[in-house]
Amino acid sequence: MQASKFNQPLGGNDMPRAGGIATMMRLPMATLSDNIDVGFIGVPFDIGTSNRVGARYGPRQIRAESSLLRPYNMATRAAPFESLQVADLGDCPINTFNLLDSIRIIEEYYDKVADAGVVPLTLGGDHTIVLPILRALRKKHAQPIGVVHIDAHADVNDEMFGEKIAHGTPFRRALEENLIDPHRMVQIGLRGTGYSAEDFDWCRAQGIRVVQAEECWHKSLAPLMDEVRAMMGDGPVYISYDIDGLDPAFAPGTGTPEVGGLTVQQGLEIVRGCKGLNIIGGDLVEVSPPYDSTGNTSLLGANLLFEMLCVLPGVKYA
Amino acid sequence: MQASKFNQPLGGNDMPRAGGIATMMRLPMATLSDNIDVGFIGVPFDIGTSNRVGARYGPRQIRAESSLLRPYNMATRAAPFESLQVADLGDCPINTFNLLDSIRIIEEYYDKVADAGVVPLTLGGDHTIVLPILRALRKKHAQPIGVVHIDAHADVNDEMFGEKIAHGTPFRRALEENLIDPHRMVQIGLRGTGYSAEDFDWCRAQGIRVVQAEECWHKSLAPLMDEVRAMMGDGPVYISYDIDGLDPAFAPGTGTPEVGGLTVQQGLEIVRGCKGLNIIGGDLVEVSPPYDSTGNTSLLGANLLFEMLCVLPGVKYA
Amino acid sequence: MQASKFNQPLGGNDMPRAGGIATMMRLPMATLSDNIDVGFIGVPFDIGTSNRVGARYGPRQIRAESSLLRPYNMATRAAPFESLQVADLGDCPINTFNLLDSIRIIEEYYDKVADAGVVPLTLGGDHTIVLPILRALRKKHAQPIGVVHIDAHADVNDEMFGEKIAHGTPFRRALEENLIDPHRMVQIGLRGTGYSAEDFDWCRAQGIRVVQAEECWHKSLAPLMDEVRAMMGDGPVYISYDIDGLDPAFAPGTGTPEVGGLTVQQGLEIVRGCKGLNIIGGDLVEVSPPYDSTGNTSLLGANLLFEMLCVLPGVKYA
Amino acid sequence: MQASKFNQPLGGNDMPRAGGIATMMRLPMATLSDNIDVGFIGVPFDIGTSNRVGARYGPRQIRAESSLLRPYNMATRAAPFESLQVADLGDCPINTFNLLDSIRIIEEYYDKVADAGVVPLTLGGDHTIVLPILRALRKKHAQPIGVVHIDAHADVNDEMFGEKIAHGTPFRRALEENLIDPHRMVQIGLRGTGYSAEDFDWCRAQGIRVVQAEECWHKSLAPLMDEVRAMMGDGPVYISYDIDGLDPAFAPGTGTPEVGGLTVQQGLEIVRGCKGLNIIGGDLVEVSPPYDSTGNTSLLGANLLFEMLCVLPGVKYA
Amino acid sequence: MQASKFNQPLGGNDMPRAGGIATMMRLPMATLSDNIDVGFIGVPFDIGTSNRVGARYGPRQIRAESSLLRPYNMATRAAPFESLQVADLGDCPINTFNLLDSIRIIEEYYDKVADAGVVPLTLGGDHTIVLPILRALRKKHAQPIGVVHIDAHADVNDEMFGEKIAHGTPFRRALEENLIDPHRMVQIGLRGTGYSAEDFDWCRAQGIRVVQAEECWHKSLAPLMDEVRAMMGDGPVYISYDIDGLDPAFAPGTGTPEVGGLTVQQGLEIVRGCKGLNIIGGDLVEVSPPYDSTGNTSLLGANLLFEMLCVLPGVKYA
Amino acid sequence: MQASKFNQPLGGNDMPRAGGIATMMRLPMATLSDNIDVGFIGVPFDIGTSNRVGARYGPRQIRAESSLLRPYNMATRAAPFESLQVADLGDCPINTFNLLDSIRIIEEYYDKVADAGVVPLTLGGDHTIVLPILRALRKKHAQPIGVVHIDAHADVNDEMFGEKIAHGTPFRRALEENLIDPHRMVQIGLRGTGYSAEDFDWCRAQGIRVVQAEECWHKSLAPLMDEVRAMMGDGPVYISYDIDGLDPAFAPGTGTPEVGGLTVQQGLEIVRGCKGLNIIGGDLVEVSPPYDSTGNTSLLGANLLFEMLCVLPGVKYA
Repeated sequence: MQASKFNQPLGGNDMPRAGGIATMMRLPMATLSDNIDVGFIGVPFDIGTSNRVGARYGPRQIRAESSLLRPYNMATRAAPFESLQVADLGDCPINTFNLLDSIRIIEEYYDKVADAGVVPLTLGGDHTIVLPILRALRKKHAQPIGVVHIDAHADVNDEMFGEKIAHGTPFRRALEENLIDPHRMVQIGLRGTGYSAEDFDWCRAQGIRVVQAEECWHKSLAPLMDEVRAMMGDGPVYISYDIDGLDPAFAPGTGTPEVGGLTVQQGLEIVRGCKGLNIIGGDLVEVSPPYDSTGNTSLLGANLLFEMLCVLPGVKYA
Repeated sequence: MQASKFNQPLGGNDMPRAGGIATMMRLPMATLSDNIDVGFIGVPFDIGTSNRVGARYGPRQIRAESSLLRPYNMATRAAPFESLQVADLGDCPINTFNLLDSIRIIEEYYDKVADAGVVPLTLGGDHTIVLPILRALRKKHAQPIGVVHIDAHADVNDEMFGEKIAHGTPFRRALEENLIDPHRMVQIGLRGTGYSAEDFDWCRAQGIRVVQAEECWHKSLAPLMDEVRAMMGDGPVYISYDIDGLDPAFAPGTGTPEVGGLTVQQGLEIVRGCKGLNIIGGDLVEVSPPYDSTGNTSLLGANLLFEMLCVLPGVKYA
Repeated sequence: MQASKFNQPLGGNDMPRAGGIATMMRLPMATLSDNIDVGFIGVPFDIGTSNRVGARYGPRQIRAESSLLRPYNMATRAAPFESLQVADLGDCPINTFNLLDSIRIIEEYYDKVADAGVVPLTLGGDHTIVLPILRALRKKHAQPIGVVHIDAHADVNDEMFGEKIAHGTPFRRALEENLIDPHRMVQIGLRGTGYSAEDFDWCRAQGIRVVQAEECWHKSLAPLMDEVRAMMGDGPVYISYDIDGLDPAFAPGTGTPEVGGLTVQQGLEIVRGCKGLNIIGGDLVEVSPPYDSTGNTSLLGANLLFEMLCVLPGVKYA
Repeated sequence: MQASKFNQPLGGNDMPRAGGIATMMRLPMATLSDNIDVGFIGVPFDIGTSNRVGARYGPRQIRAESSLLRPYNMATRAAPFESLQVADLGDCPINTFNLLDSIRIIEEYYDKVADAGVVPLTLGGDHTIVLPILRALRKKHAQPIGVVHIDAHADVNDEMFGEKIAHGTPFRRALEENLIDPHRMVQIGLRGTGYSAEDFDWCRAQGIRVVQAEECWHKSLAPLMDEVRAMMGDGPVYISYDIDGLDPAFAPGTGTPEVGGLTVQQGLEIVRGCKGLNIIGGDLVEVSPPYDSTGNTSLLGANLLFEMLCVLPGVKYA
Repeated sequence: MQASKFNQPLGGNDMPRAGGIATMMRLPMATLSDNIDVGFIGVPFDIGTSNRVGARYGPRQIRAESSLLRPYNMATRAAPFESLQVADLGDCPINTFNLLDSIRIIEEYYDKVADAGVVPLTLGGDHTIVLPILRALRKKHAQPIGVVHIDAHADVNDEMFGEKIAHGTPFRRALEENLIDPHRMVQIGLRGTGYSAEDFDWCRAQGIRVVQAEECWHKSLAPLMDEVRAMMGDGPVYISYDIDGLDPAFAPGTGTPEVGGLTVQQGLEIVRGCKGLNIIGGDLVEVSPPYDSTGNTSLLGANLLFEMLCVLPGVKYA
Repeated sequence: MQASKFNQPLGGNDMPRAGGIATMMRLPMATLSDNIDVGFIGVPFDIGTSNRVGARYGPRQIRAESSLLRPYNMATRAAPFESLQVADLGDCPINTFNLLDSIRIIEEYYDKVADAGVVPLTLGGDHTIVLPILRALRKKHAQPIGVVHIDAHADVNDEMFGEKIAHGTPFRRALEENLIDPHRMVQIGLRGTGYSAEDFDWCRAQGIRVVQAEECWHKSLAPLMDEVRAMMGDGPVYISYDIDGLDPAFAPGTGTPEVGGLTVQQGLEIVRGCKGLNIIGGDLVEVSPPYDSTGNTSLLGANLLFEMLCVLPGVKYA
C-alpha cells in the first residue's frame, strides 16, 4: 500500500490482527494539537448506570475488538481514510467516584475538542455522558442540535433516585438547556416497560419524533431514514447510539437490555441513512464488556462507530 | 408515587435495581389465603428433561432478572398493577429425585391455587410441569381448555425411554385425559429434527392447528393471532410458552435449542395477540440458567410472563 | 424401531442424549472401505486463521452438539437415513504446525475419499481447507465445479501476509487452478469492511454471482435459490458454508464475525434451496468453540450439515 | 425436624435447593422490629470501586448461592440456629448515583440496626461501606472498635482521584474519626503493587498489626489467630472481610484481584480463630458476580458469612 | 512408535490433539467380549443430584478433555499401556426420567462388566451410581469391599426428600447391604455444612476412618496413605472419587461445591498412595460441565482416572 | 507526584483504571531508538501450539489487565521506575500463517532489540518464541545463557508431528545450538503425562537441574532459589516462564494445562528468588485469553512480568 497523507488503520498484512496496541481500528494516537479531523474518544464512565454496570470498560473492549476492522466499507463504498485525518485521542479521565465532577470534566474536555474543530466519535461509557458532550458541542453552533437517537429508552426521566443527572435523564436536561431541537430529534427503538404508559408521550409532546420499536418490526428502516433526513435539513446533527436500541440477540453485552428491539440490519440502515446530513459528532454507548463474553457486542459497537465515520461530511466514496 | 390498593413492584427509585430480595418483579410475597388475583409461582423442576438440564434454576434466575421490569407496558399501555392484585407465591416444593411423585405434588399444589381462584403464571422448570397444572385447572372448568402453545417441539410423544411422563409427552397425556380441546389448540413454532416426518401430522390429525416455524418466517404474526382469537372464542385458554419456540439467537439459554425459530418480535406478538381471550393461566418453561451466561434468556422469560399478565382479563389500559 | 439396512443415528430412547460416544449424530464410525455413500469428516485445522483461532475444535464440538439431532427433517420431510449409507469417517490428521504440509495431507486424504465414491460432508476447521478438498473433488469431474458459497467474506485475496494460502484466499486459488466455474458460483452474505471497495467487484468480474448481505435483508431467499438452481444446471455442485455468513446473533462462535449478516432462517433456505442440484460435497467451516460458550453455534453447524445431507441426490422424502 | 423457637434455614428436604425465594440461607425475612439477634443485610453498592465494578450484585448472588448451606458447621460443631434468632433483613436502599448520599443513607440505616440491638452481618457491596457501618456501630460503644481486617489492600489511602471516600480509603477515615482502635486492629493478607513501598508502613506507624500475605504463605494461621485473640481482649470487635484477601484462585469473582493471596483454608482459619471474641458485626465485601461465572465466589462469600455467624457470642456448639 | 500388543492412546504425532473421536484418552472402543483388562465406562446420569445438575455431561466432557493425556505417568513412571489391555467401553444407557429404573440398569450393566473380568473405571455421573456399581462388584467377591472415598460429603444420609436413593445416600445403603466393609473404608476430605453436627460421627460409629478436610490442611497426605494401605490389607478395594473432595479452586465445575477442601496435590497423593492395593474398580463422579467453562475440571477428572489406571494391579513401571 | 526523569505507569489518580490506552502497565510507547533500558514486547504468536490455541491474544489481554498494576512492589520494596527507563515497545509483527517465517522475523526483531541494549521482557505468545529470542540474545554474550525455566513441560521434544520447531521443542534446539548452558539451567514445575517415562531423564542427562512439581509440593521454594542463584553465578541468565508451570487453579487460561502444579506463591518465590542474578531478559508465555474468562490469568501474567522487572540489575529498592 502506498503512503497516504492520511492516517491509516494498521493493516492485517503489516501486523496480525491479534497484535498491535489496541487503539481504535489500530489507528495512530494523536492529541488535539495534531490537526485531526475526526477523533475517536473514550469515556470510561458508568456511574450513571441504574442496572448492570460495566460500561466503563466499553472503550477498552471496543478498541480491542476494532482490530478486525479494515479501512473500506464494502456496503456503502465509503473510504473515510482517503479524505479525513482520523486518530484515536485516548480517553477522557473522569472521576470515577463522583458523577457530577465527572460531568464537569467531560464538558471541559469536549470544549477543547470542539475548539480544536475535531468531530468527536465517542466510545462510551453509559448514556449520561451525552449531556456534557452536547453542552460542549452546542457552544459551537448557533442553533440547537438535531439528534438521531437510537435507544430502547427515551432517557427523559426528570430524575432518578432523586438525582437530576443519571443515564436515564440526559435528554430531559438537554431539552431544558436548549442544547437540542426537539423538532429535529428522532428517537428510534423505544420499547419495554416503564413507570408510566405516558413516558413516551412526553417526548411526543415536546415535538420529538418517536418511533417505537414495534413500528419498526419486520421491515426496512430506509423509508424512515428518508423522513429523518428531510426533517434534519442542513442543521447540525448528532448521532447518539445506545447499543440497547438493538435487540439483545444482536447486542447482549449491555446494561439494561430490553427484548423486542431493532435488528442489527435496521441498526445499520439508520446510520447509513444519515449520509448527507451535517453530522457534527456521535457516540456509541452502553456496551458492557462483563456481559459480552464473546466480544461480539463490542465488535458491533466498533462497527457502528466506523459506520458513523463513513457518513461524516467530507468522506469520499469509491 | 401515591399508595395503591394493589401490590406494586418495588421501584427503582425506592431501591436500586441491583438490590431487594429477588421475588418476581420485586413484588410482595403472599400465600393463597391473601386474596390474590394473579400469582407468580415457581416450579424448580427439570428431571423430565431429555437433553441439557438446568431448568430447575429457571424460577430463581427469572426472578433475579425480573428486577429490571417496571410496572407499565410501553407498547400495549397495559397497567396490570392498577386493577389486579398480583403477588409472588414462591415455589412448589417438588421431589427432585422422583418424577412421578413430583407430578403428584404439583397437581395437588395447583389444585389449591385453582381453588383459591388465583390465576397462576408459572415460572418453569421443564415442560413436563404443564401436565399437572392442566389437570388441576381442568377441574375448575366445564369444558376442555384451549391452549396457545409456543414451542419448537410438539411434546406429544407417546413415551420417552419407555416413560409416559417426560418433557416431550405432556400434551399427548393432556389430550388423552381430555384436559384440553384440540380444536381450540394452536402450536406455533414447531420445527427441527424428529423421529418421524409424520410427528406433526399426528397433531393435525387430532384437530390441532399446527403452525410450523417455517410458516412464520419473514412476517408478522398479528394475522395469525387474529385467527387464533377467533378459534378460541370465549372458553378458557391457557398459554404454555416454551422459550425454545424462539430461535436460539433470542433465547440461547435453554435445554433443547432448535435453529430456525421464531423471532422475539413474533414471540411478543403472540402473547399480545392473546388480549381479549379468557386466559386462565400461563407458563414460561425451559429456561436453563447454566446456558444463559448473560441472564438475557431469563430476562426474556420474565418479560414474557409480564406480557401474559398484561393480557389477563380485567387488566386496565392507560 | 425395526432394523434398517442403513446406519441410523443412535436414538434418544436407546441412549440418553447426554450419553454415547460423540460421533456425528451418534452415527457408527466407518472407514473408506465400508461401502459408505456419505461420510462426515472432520478437519481439525485452524492455522489458516487471520483473527480469532479455535476452529480446530470445530469438529469435536459439532459432533458433541449433534447428539441432539434426530433422523428426520420435520420441515422438508427428508429421511436421509432411509436411502443412504451414512457414517462418521473420523478426522483427517493434519500437521498442526505447518500449513502447506497440512494442505498436502488434506488433498491426499480427500483423493481417497473421492476415489471411494463417498460424498464428503466436512466439519471444519477454517476455510483454508476448501482448497485441497476442491482439488481432490475436481479430479473426479470432467468440468469445473459449481459452488454455493455462503460467507461474510469473498475469500479471494491474492495473498495474506505474503502467503498464497490462508483462510482468505482459497477461492482465488481455486479459480486460478480451474477447480471451480465462476459462472456456476454464487457467493451469498458478503459484507463488512475490506481493504478496498473493489474487493467484491473482482468476484463479479470473474463472472461470479455476488449477493451482498444487504441485498438479502428483510426477505426470504427462496427466490434467490430459484435463480441459483437455474444457474447451476446439472453439473456438479459443492456447498461451502462459512458459518460467519450468518449474523453473529445467530452464530456468535466464529473467528471473524461481521455484523449485519444473514438470519438463520435465510441460512436454512439456502441449503434447502439446493434440493435437486447435483451436490457432490459440502463443508461447514469456521465454527470456533472457544467463542461458543453455549454450544449453540456448534449445534447450528451440526444442523446445517444435516440439512446438506438432506438435499443430497438420492435422499428419500416422507 | 421439630419446631424450634428460632428461625431455621429452609431445608433441602422441604424445598429442593434450586427452589425457594433467595433470602440468605433461605431464612425468613424480618424487619428491625422483629426481635432479631442477628441480621443479614445487603448493601448493593459499588460506586466506590476503582477497578472492575459489579459488587452491587454481590448481595443478590451471595443469597442465591447460600441456598446450598445447611444449618450446622461440621468443622466447628457450631449450631447457630439453636440459640440465636437470625433473619434476612433485606437490603439498604442506597442512592446508586451519588456516593456521598449513599454513605449518609447507609449510616442512618445502620444507626437503626444498632439501636435495635441487632448484630449486622453485611453482604457487600464494595469496601467503602465499612465506613458508615463503623460510624453507626461506634456510637453504641464506649471505646473504639477492634478490627479483624482481611484484605489484599490496606484501604488507608488519604484520597482517590481527589475524593476522600472510596473503596480504598475507609480505614483511613475510620482511624481519623476514632471509630477504630489501631492497637486492636489486624490486617491480614496485604500484598500486591502500590503507589509507594511505604504504604503499609503507614499502617504500622499507627499501631496496626500488619500481616502481609507473604508472612502467611505455606502455613497455618492458627498461631496468628492466637495472637489476635490476645490482642483484642474483651472489647468490641468487627470483622471486615474483603474477599480479595484470598488468592484469586479461590475467589476469582472480585474487582481488584491480587495474586499471591491467602488460601481459603487460611481464610477459614481466620474467622474460626475469632471464636471467643466479642464480635459486634461483620461484613463480606467485594464479591463481583459478573466475574464469578460459576457462582463459586459468591458461595464462598456465603460460607464466610456463615462462619462469622458461627463465632458470634452466644452460639451453641454441639 | 513400534506396534504394541496392547491398545495405545492415539498419539499427538498421529493426530493433532484437537482431532480424533473423543473416546477416553483417544483409546479404541471395545465391547465386553473383546478381552479387555480395564474398561473406561461412562454413566451419563445426574437425576440423583440435589443441587446443581449437569453431571450427565461428565462422561462426554471428560473424554473430550482427556485428549491431552499421553500414555506415561511422569511422576510415578507408571506405563499402564505396556501391560494392560485398556479400552473405552462407551456409556451405560440409563433411563434419564426414572432414578430407580436407572439404578437397576446400571447394576445389570456392571454385572456383565464384572462377569467379563473387566476392571471398571467409571466416568460419572453423580455419586448415586456408586451404589449399583458396588452391588455388582460385591457379587464377585467373598468379602465386603474396602473403599477409599474422597469427597466433601459423607453420602450416608438415610434419605433425601423421602427417597432412599439419591446422591447423598449411596454409602448408607451400601453399608446396610453389606457391600462394603466399614473397617476397611476411609473418607477423606469431608467438610462443610450439614443438618446435624453429628453427621460424620455416625460414620465413625460404623467404624469408618473419617478424615475431615481440616485434618488435611497444610500438609502432605502421604503419611495418611501409608495408614490407609495398612488398613486395607490384601482385600478388594474400590476408589470412589467425588471431584468435590477437592477445593472448588481446583475443581470449580461440580454440583455441590464446598469451600476449604483438599488441594489437587493432595488429591493426587491419595490415588498414588493406593499403589499396591488390590484395586478392583474406581469412579470419578460429580464433574458438571455446565459449570466448567474452561474444561479444566473435566481435564482434572480425566487425570484422576488415569492415575487410578496407573495404580491398578499389574501395571508396569519404567 | 513530582516529575520523574523515568517513564511512569499512568496512575489511577490521573486516569481511572478502566481507561487509558492499554499499553503494558499503561506505560508510554517507545521505539528502539528511544534510549530505553527495558522494553515490554508482545509476540502475538500461537501457531506452534499443539493443543488449545489462543495465546496470540496473550499480549493484548496481558496489557489490558496490567492496568491494575501500580509502580511499587509492596512485598520486595522494588521501585523499578525510579532507576530504569521502561517502555512498551509494541508487538513483533509475525507471519501468522507460517511458523518458520515467523521464527525468522522474531529473531531479526530481537537482534535489533539486543543491538539497542534493551532488556526484553516478552509477552507471549506460545513457547516456541523463546528459541528465536535466545538466538538473538546469545549473539551478544560470550557464553551460553543460563536459564530459569518454569513450566509443566520440559519442551525438549526432538520433533512434533515431524516438525523440528514447535512449542514443545525450543529448548532441545537451544541446547543443540549452544545457545544455553545446561549446567546453568533449571526447570521447575515439570509434571504430567508424557510419551515416555524417560522424557525428563534426558534433561538430566544433559546436566539440567530438573525440579519436578512433586518435589515442590507443600513447601517454600526459597531454599531452591538459594541453590539456583549459586548455580547461576555471574553469567547471563534468562527467565522463561510458561504460565502452565503453575497449577490450573491459579492459571486456568492456558493451552496445555497440567494438574498438580506449582502454587502462585511458589511462582512468585521463583522470580523474587532471581534477585541478584544477571538477568538479560525474560518472557511470560502460554496465556490463552479465550480460556481466561475472568482475565485473572492475564493479570497473573502481567504481575509475573512486573516481578521480572523488579529483579533486573539496577533496580532500586525503597
